Amino acid sequence: MKILVAGAGAMGSRFAYMLVKSGNDVVITDSWKQHIDVINNKGLKVLIDGYNMGTYRLPAFLPNEVHGEFDLIILLTKAMQLESMLQDIKHVFSDNTLVINLVSGLGNAEQILEYVTMDRLYVASNYWTAGLGGPGVVDAVGEGTIKLQIYKNDSSQYDEQVIDVLNSAGFRAKLSHDVFLDIWKELAVSSVINPMCAILDCTIAQFGAYKGNVEISRLILDEIVEVAKHENVVLNIEDILDKISSLFPDTVAGRHYPSMHQDLMTKRNTEIDYLNGYIVQLGLKYDVLTPINSIIRHQIKLKEQLNEGSKKR
Amino acid sequence: MKILVAGAGAMGSRFAYMLVKSGNDVVITDSWKQHIDVINNKGLKVLIDGYNMGTYRLPAFLPNEVHGEFDLIILLTKAMQLESMLQDIKHVFSDNTLVINLVSGLGNAEQILEYVTMDRLYVASNYWTAGLGGPGVVDAVGEGTIKLQIYKNDSSQYDEQVIDVLNSAGFRAKLSHDVFLDIWKELAVSSVINPMCAILDCTIAQFGAYKGNVEISRLILDEIVEVAKHENVVLNIEDILDKISSLFPDTVAGRHYPSMHQDLMTKRNTEIDYLNGYIVQLGLKYDVLTPINSIIRHQIKLKEQLNEGSKKR
Repeated sequence: MKILVAGAGAMGSRFAYMLVKSGNDVVITDSWKQHIDVINNKGLKVLIDGYNMGTYRLPAFLPNEVHGEFDLIILLTKAMQLESMLQDIKHVFSDNTLVINLVSGLGNAEQILEYVTMDRLYVASNYWTAGLGGPGVVDAVGEGTIKLQIYKNDSSQYDEQVIDVLNSAGFRAKLSHDVFLDIWKELAVSSVINPMCAILDCTIAQFGAYKGNVEISRLILDEIVEVAKHENVVLNIEDILDKISSLFPDTVAGRHYPSMHQDLMTKRNTEIDYLNGYIVQLGLKYDVLTPINSIIRHQIKLKEQLNEGSKKR
Repeated sequence: MKILVAGAGAMGSRFAYMLVKSGNDVVITDSWKQHIDVINNKGLKVLIDGYNMGTYRLPAFLPNEVHGEFDLIILLTKAMQLESMLQDIKHVFSDNTLVINLVSGLGNAEQILEYVTMDRLYVASNYWTAGLGGPGVVDAVGEGTIKLQIYKNDSSQYDEQVIDVLNSAGFRAKLSHDVFLDIWKELAVSSVINPMCAILDCTIAQFGAYKGNVEISRLILDEIVEVAKHENVVLNIEDILDKISSLFPDTVAGRHYPSMHQDLMTKRNTEIDYLNGYIVQLGLKYDVLTPINSIIRHQIKLKEQLNEGSKKR
């Protein structure tokens, strides 16, 4: 299958490796030029669980330089980079192209539907992890699973083909009918952990060690559960609290700072508008008050602005 | 008049200087031993607007070592130190002692009423500023005013005496009937500026430069105005927003970090429970929802806990 992996950071690079290794014709595109150049010149080097899995040759392009037609496009950008990626690669979408959306957060499927019909778009929840060891080097651990769902299931003719390609590559993928629920759960967890650790400059375990963490979580989650109802998604707040507390041990994610913290530290913009900011937007749409998510969004935005100021200096 | 200044940080020391200079018999007490020792050994050195105003001899004691009787006790501790100060000096309260409460925040008058009757307690709002140039050295600027109100005005026999003493010392004090409103306004302003700058690590001007600052302020203030109503205090939200924005210019307070920011930086506990935390408490009492003030309180408490952790390491 001819596959374009659009957004080839850690996760995209890991996906590209698995797909090319299993015999697909894979092209990578990303706006990080150094990464693209290393892959073109030396190939993609892959370490999994510390083992050297070899170096793989595959063509890599900056987004506006991608050409040809693809059977499948896998979108793996950060949420805030999706729009410009779609703009840059719009010429490679054809009537036969299938798309898998693996961009985290909510609200991005609507953007993608400008380029592909809803019977050819898969939404997915992704339980793989990834890491980079520098440009051109995947350095990842463990295994995961993927759940896929056609955005609107008018026909099921493509299911087997996509699932087969993914599973031949070892992705342990399956079709599901509750991917949206999974995506909402993930959003709910991230809307607590990511901004709180980013604002307060603490690890996930340090957040967990604060005795008021459940009360903080509930204040944020109450609004999310209410907004989700209006999207016909029924979230169980206790499930989400369990998922959050399951992250606290050092053996799970405790020692980590969430990516939003890293984004602020390195003066990048964050995904806040696809997490708490998205909740605020939906709250306005459905006339649900979301003051807590609003102030958290503002706090992150203010930190981003402080970073902008210090970059200019 | 024999006066005890209880809590002799920057403000207490400035007050003691003004009172001793105008001929009163002033004693200082504070738990900062180095400060007390310097005042006893070398006197209190005073700089006002950069001018050396001289060095003043006055007896200074640790709180549990104060003795004698006083006509007037002026309370000027930090809110969270008031309880232990009152405990330590309870033996010097007599039936004739008048008390002026100049501790910032709300909810502390109730503590003081354990030691003095409500017709002998003055609540006050204080528009003087102060600074220290190290132990035993006042380094302050500008002038201010004081408004006083008897906590419960059953008799007015003490008014003139206290007002006269303060005005002879240059305090520009006057009796008022809306001191509680002033204190609430000050609390409202501080409940926005102090925690936001402390949490987000920004100056007052940087907070003001963020375009969402009014929306943030309103989210916090809406709850405060609602709680204040139940205390029979009618706050005007536009007045408070004006006061907040009046602080933004560098020529006013823009360059400054509020004291709560300094408290976190130097790993001291903050006054959060006398600001947003007090609003949360009153919200519980009156069944008013205060989620925004609650999450802000939690954020500061979590920062305090992180500081505790890093002190132990």
